[in-house]
Amino acid sequence: MTTLVIGANGQIGKQFCELAQQAGEPIKAMIRDESQAEWFSERQIPIIVADLEGEFEHAFEDCDQVIFTAGSGPHTGPDKTLIIDLYGAIRAADIASEKGLDRYIMVSAIRAEHPLEAPEKMRPYMAAKFAADSHLRFAKVPHVILKPGPLTNEKATHGFAGTMEASPEQSITRADVAHALLHVVKTPTLKDREFTLLNGKERISDLVR
Amino acid sequence: MTTLVIGANGQIGKQFCELAQQAGEPIKAMIRDESQAEWFSERQIPIIVADLEGEFEHAFEDCDQVIFTAGSGPHTGPDKTLIIDLYGAIRAADIASEKGLDRYIMVSAIRAEHPLEAPEKMRPYMAAKFAADSHLRFAKVPHVILKPGPLTNEKATHGFAGTMEASPEQSITRADVAHALLHVVKTPTLKDREFTLLNGKERISDLVR
Repeated sequence: MTTLVIGANGQIGKQFCELAQQAGEPIKAMIRDESQAEWFSERQIPIIVADLEGEFEHAFEDCDQVIFTAGSGPHTGPDKTLIIDLYGAIRAADIASEKGLDRYIMVSAIRAEHPLEAPEKMRPYMAAKFAADSHLRFAKVPHVILKPGPLTNEKATHGFAGTMEASPEQSITRADVAHALLHVVKTPTLKDREFTLLNGKERISDLVR
Repeated sequence: MTTLVIGANGQIGKQFCELAQQAGEPIKAMIRDESQAEWFSERQIPIIVADLEGEFEHAFEDCDQVIFTAGSGPHTGPDKTLIIDLYGAIRAADIASEKGLDRYIMVSAIRAEHPLEAPEKMRPYMAAKFAADSHLRFAKVPHVILKPGPLTNEKATHGFAGTMEASPEQSITRADVAHALLHVVKTPTLKDREFTLLNGKERISDLVR
């Protein structure tokens, strides 16, 4: 079961790739160009060069499932949100459906299903996540949608919560999201499920099951 | 059969409302606030005040089908494209599905199914139209998607074409799009169909049927 990682060079993507490699889970890290390759080659992580803003269907070859953890990031505008977070995610779902992939594991965002309840500045981004998740739910490929709360760069805590009420931190570390992704990858029975992710007191295997 | 017109105050919307009113087709023009009401009251066109960037479900009351011809326009950025052209259109499709409406008639754009083939500046906008159309195709409400080419402000020609090759103008007047909308409204058997619209030599009833 090989997992294509779209957004492998991102902050969550890199941590997930490293964890998966250490755990012996076969992955293929999709990167934009060769300049991003060194970090992955140093860790013997297989790469595939493909452009999420162009055609990237060839990246799916020999892959059984896909993780989408790409994001246009905080330093780009909503034009990139439309092309990457929205259209890239939708195209990936269409390709995964056409190819009959086993699963599409999406890194979305907490409360993406209610974009108008987000702070005004965040609404366009949340609308893109809403539309991408919605497309994935309609698509033929089975899906798992992880909806992390506000992300931090602290170390992994290995403690999780599924609601804001159960989370003293009201946030989650990117490292813990990477661990949650590994747990999903290792649990192939999880299909057509959605989970809000925050830091808290539960083990991931008790929360995401 | 009453038609809710979302985007009634836009350039195509106004022309359609006027045609529909003259033709005796019952419509309800959805406008953002009372300041837009005068033009419609002067023509005895019923209005409903609702905000496409907020909750607008109440606008659907007593309507049997909906036209979506709202656009954030050329003077706003891609943040508004995400909220209006994408999320507004998707929310409208979800409401129309939940309410069991008869049809959703979408004004999309030519070649919206291939956003990456558009000029780079247009791609984010086309990605939004692509995603909105795609959501509508999956939605439960029957749909008609009109995909006009580049829009002009000339008078109605009443001549249409379905391909760029058949269109000497390589464009279409907004007035003709309004006439095409009226034709679709008057043809309730049209369901789950999509039509590219340009100016040319055909009658609308020969092209859109």
